[in-house]
Amino acid sequence: MAVSVYISRRPFTPQPLPRRPAAALCASTSINFRHAPSLVRCSLHRPEYIPSHIPDPRYVRIFDTTLRDGEQSPGATMTTKEKLDIARQLARLGVDIIEAGFPASSDADFDAVRLIAQEVGNAECDHVPVICGLARCNKRDIDRAWEAVKGANKPRIHTFIATSEIHMTYKLKMSPEQVIDKARSMVAYARSLGCDDVEFSPEDAGRSDRGFLYQILGEVINAGATTLNIPDTVGYTLPNEFGQLIADIKANTPGIENVVISTHCQNDLGLSTANTLAGAQAGARQLEVTINGIGERAGNASLEEVVMALKCRGGQLLDGLYTGINTQHITMASKMVEEYSGLRVQPHKAIVGANAFAHESGIHQDGMLKHKTTYEIISPEEIGLLRSNESGIVLGKLSGRHALKAKILELGFDIDGKDLDDLFVRFKTIAGNKKIITDDDLIALVADEVFQPLVVWKLEDVQVTCGTLGLSTATVKLTDANGNEHIACSVGTGPVDAAYKAVDLIVKVPVTLLEYSMNAVTEGIDAIATTRVLIRGENSAEATHALTGETINRAFSGTGAAMDIVISSVRAYIGALNKLVGFWDRLETSNSGEAKVLHTA
Amino acid sequence: MAVSVYISRRPFTPQPLPRRPAAALCASTSINFRHAPSLVRCSLHRPEYIPSHIPDPRYVRIFDTTLRDGEQSPGATMTTKEKLDIARQLARLGVDIIEAGFPASSDADFDAVRLIAQEVGNAECDHVPVICGLARCNKRDIDRAWEAVKGANKPRIHTFIATSEIHMTYKLKMSPEQVIDKARSMVAYARSLGCDDVEFSPEDAGRSDRGFLYQILGEVINAGATTLNIPDTVGYTLPNEFGQLIADIKANTPGIENVVISTHCQNDLGLSTANTLAGAQAGARQLEVTINGIGERAGNASLEEVVMALKCRGGQLLDGLYTGINTQHITMASKMVEEYSGLRVQPHKAIVGANAFAHESGIHQDGMLKHKTTYEIISPEEIGLLRSNESGIVLGKLSGRHALKAKILELGFDIDGKDLDDLFVRFKTIAGNKKIITDDDLIALVADEVFQPLVVWKLEDVQVTCGTLGLSTATVKLTDANGNEHIACSVGTGPVDAAYKAVDLIVKVPVTLLEYSMNAVTEGIDAIATTRVLIRGENSAEATHALTGETINRAFSGTGAAMDIVISSVRAYIGALNKLVGFWDRLETSNSGEAKVLHTA
Repeated sequence: MAVSVYISRRPFTPQPLPRRPAAALCASTSINFRHAPSLVRCSLHRPEYIPSHIPDPRYVRIFDTTLRDGEQSPGATMTTKEKLDIARQLARLGVDIIEAGFPASSDADFDAVRLIAQEVGNAECDHVPVICGLARCNKRDIDRAWEAVKGANKPRIHTFIATSEIHMTYKLKMSPEQVIDKARSMVAYARSLGCDDVEFSPEDAGRSDRGFLYQILGEVINAGATTLNIPDTVGYTLPNEFGQLIADIKANTPGIENVVISTHCQNDLGLSTANTLAGAQAGARQLEVTINGIGERAGNASLEEVVMALKCRGGQLLDGLYTGINTQHITMASKMVEEYSGLRVQPHKAIVGANAFAHESGIHQDGMLKHKTTYEIISPEEIGLLRSNESGIVLGKLSGRHALKAKILELGFDIDGKDLDDLFVRFKTIAGNKKIITDDDLIALVADEVFQPLVVWKLEDVQVTCGTLGLSTATVKLTDANGNEHIACSVGTGPVDAAYKAVDLIVKVPVTLLEYSMNAVTEGIDAIATTRVLIRGENSAEATHALTGETINRAFSGTGAAMDIVISSVRAYIGALNKLVGFWDRLETSNSGEAKVLHTA
Repeated sequence: MAVSVYISRRPFTPQPLPRRPAAALCASTSINFRHAPSLVRCSLHRPEYIPSHIPDPRYVRIFDTTLRDGEQSPGATMTTKEKLDIARQLARLGVDIIEAGFPASSDADFDAVRLIAQEVGNAECDHVPVICGLARCNKRDIDRAWEAVKGANKPRIHTFIATSEIHMTYKLKMSPEQVIDKARSMVAYARSLGCDDVEFSPEDAGRSDRGFLYQILGEVINAGATTLNIPDTVGYTLPNEFGQLIADIKANTPGIENVVISTHCQNDLGLSTANTLAGAQAGARQLEVTINGIGERAGNASLEEVVMALKCRGGQLLDGLYTGINTQHITMASKMVEEYSGLRVQPHKAIVGANAFAHESGIHQDGMLKHKTTYEIISPEEIGLLRSNESGIVLGKLSGRHALKAKILELGFDIDGKDLDDLFVRFKTIAGNKKIITDDDLIALVADEVFQPLVVWKLEDVQVTCGTLGLSTATVKLTDANGNEHIACSVGTGPVDAAYKAVDLIVKVPVTLLEYSMNAVTEGIDAIATTRVLIRGENSAEATHALTGETINRAFSGTGAAMDIVISSVRAYIGALNKLVGFWDRLETSNSGEAKVLHTA
């Protein structure tokens, strides 16, 4: 029953990231994703934000942890710029709380959370999300988290400690009494810093002793926690069981009426969406989710499934529960997260998969399919999915800069200045070789131009000879940040191997290629191919894992698009190398509080 | 509480598919997938099969529809050989019922179902699955289905008609009375043919009027139906709602105690696994699922999630429900279906995704992770997943034929004769160029050699020049089924475009390339890349869609593996072309009942 109005869109005006001159070659300062045309729908019905209480009992808060839990999944490392882009998109989606990262993990993580708190947490918009930072139950972590989020209009610290016997025994090596004492004192410590919005999670709650759970939760409520999050850390529970757990906590925890209960469900048995909904039905009013359901192992409950289930059936079956999410931004959020995390969604993924709205195409449409609801319960438009060929503007090789700008705006991208110029040059080259420029072609091109890290190395030329008859040989020409040209050649086991070895001769950063994949989603053999690679630097980009406490060596993804698969492969590799090198470029805060780039490479 | 024993494996000894001489070049007659080493675990606890009744009230039948519902998803078309391979693997998994296809859809579908009924439905094994064919509620469909499945030891006909108001009005254009009459008379007709195992589904049951549902179900029970399947066709229900639907049907349908109730849940809201389990808890004792959850739109409940949830929690939470599935065959079934359907699973797919058992790798393992159950509720071994580097044999360039055979056996592939010879030649070439041959490399190679359609065209050589500096040019040499060589060259927008155009000049089959993708899962730049393409022939391979009744033009996937991405791309394209051409090679039955190949191309 949410009432919606259309208002003029006020774009976010973030403080641009300062960068070296060469960086302007490709990275952009003026990108704003948006849903066509120039309007944003905002829910009028979002109740006032009070940390420990929601004025409307039917309103469910959506807590997105794509940037924390999602980003710590293997290979999903994102740069600060990428995290900022996603945080802006999450704000546009209408997410209530953004968990922006784990600030104690590394300096880069800290910087990203602080920047998101400053920019997205203070945007001039009718809806400003809470910015949350994760911290283990120790003073250093909590200090770092507070330092990172305190610049936000609505900052939150989320602290956690394991409460299941197996975790307390083998991971923490602490007694239950020690765990309670730690939890209570650290929640109080977070409050003492001036943070009046503190979330506490008993890790592995699904396998914790009930009595112990009620006790520790009661203690942290006393100590000042405002949200209690109940994680099914190993994705082990069934829906009725998880719903019962929430109901039991609600019934038995002293002081529970003074806080908001939250769910956090992993997907190991494929039940995370159902468990999350069961939690909401049992009284949880904050749901922790990620875009596309990404996360470690089998991931988390996915935002799009939980939100669309509530939207489609909440009124009828779930006591009228509703969220503040503007679902028309789901598709763009999904694509952006897929692009930046490198975690592809399967074609049959619910809501956002490529086939979710597709039927095997028929020769004899008999009119029945025109009555779409025979097989379609959600219209694609509801999640902001524009079907190819449904949008009005068709581009060809004679199309001008203005038509290109109008078309990409229709597809949800707002690009200007040098970015548009660069895109237009690429577009004209493609248009000269390809009869029809599809929407997918354009999205691939925009992704290649816009979803790129700061440029350190740039591909100028590549030339390759290969095949079954001889040795593959590649020659590459790169320019560095100062505009100097470097040329190298190498032989290899195939054209990509040869080209990558030639790049290595120039760039000289020791990395391991972990994954390599390519996609051409557009019809026809002369499609634009998008390559994605995942690399890990040797002895670089260390960070602390939130749950295990281990030091991890992060991996970086890169993408490249071209009609020539060898060129797109080299672009992707250089993109990943730039991301890895760029990750070292820490943002440091000077005394004046302004961010500046420090190039440590 | 299933009791399991290890018995000597008795391999299936199928009647080999007759083929033209050239076909022997690559396709195999002797492939048997199996889990290492030479043992198969069979459940002793599977109750006797009686169509309308299960002697043990806790036993749940698993009905796999990968080959019917899964195969009709966009681009997932499989050849008869591929369907037979999957049916054999499903039998090994211990699936109770295999829905082998929709025989009235096309002659090729009919042939595949009949062959599966003959071979897998009569295998010399302790467990022989029921073979089921789908039919709409009309005599022609039912005749075709019976003709196709009657050769099986335990044949079943599955007939369906829509019962929701929206479907009856817009799709069937029939009154409720007409629908009841049709359902009753067609179930009776199926029984009259001599089929004593008839399943009936009221399509879109989730949105059907309850009273009408009880009435039509009661009528078909009277007419002789033995299983009643309740589909949530549009994936619209929530778990409690679907469980209630099953409970209501169980409570209100006259004669329901004489049949088995079944679930069939689509995944549009991401709830199919939870809905299926809720159905079982409410009394359903047959669950319809697909491997990897494939199917139209967001797919179906996935076998691996439903089965592992029942295995992990059924004893404790679901009244002791259990299945007859040997879970150690899940991984191989998943890989095979991914390979043949072309539908990739996402890295965070529950149970079978690449990350399902992976953690971001740490530098300082502190021993905690060695206590695996802190984060792992299922051991990879339980689903037959051998972690790389855990198996004993390490291959290098000096390894011989015997070591290769032993290693691939360990990985679950049982290959002999010419297939092994061909694989060994490929292996030695790779081993000469690559220091370490990983398990993934080997699996990619086996897939390339073994998961291939009958060979019509074969790639001999390809040579390419490309890059940013000039026009891409490719030369290819192919041999046809008679061993004649053909050479052509072409320019293109990239190396793949050029090579595909050169292939087109030789093969002369007009096709559209729908999708193109590539993966290299092995570590290091010199990995083996696997390319997958999806093509659609113009005016070829027509079939009838089961639910919509439309004529669809099928698409075909092909894969190729090589260290050179251009070579792997060409191999994949030729593989898809061979599959498309091979699909026309219908199997026709002579009067003697033996199958023979008719080449109609």
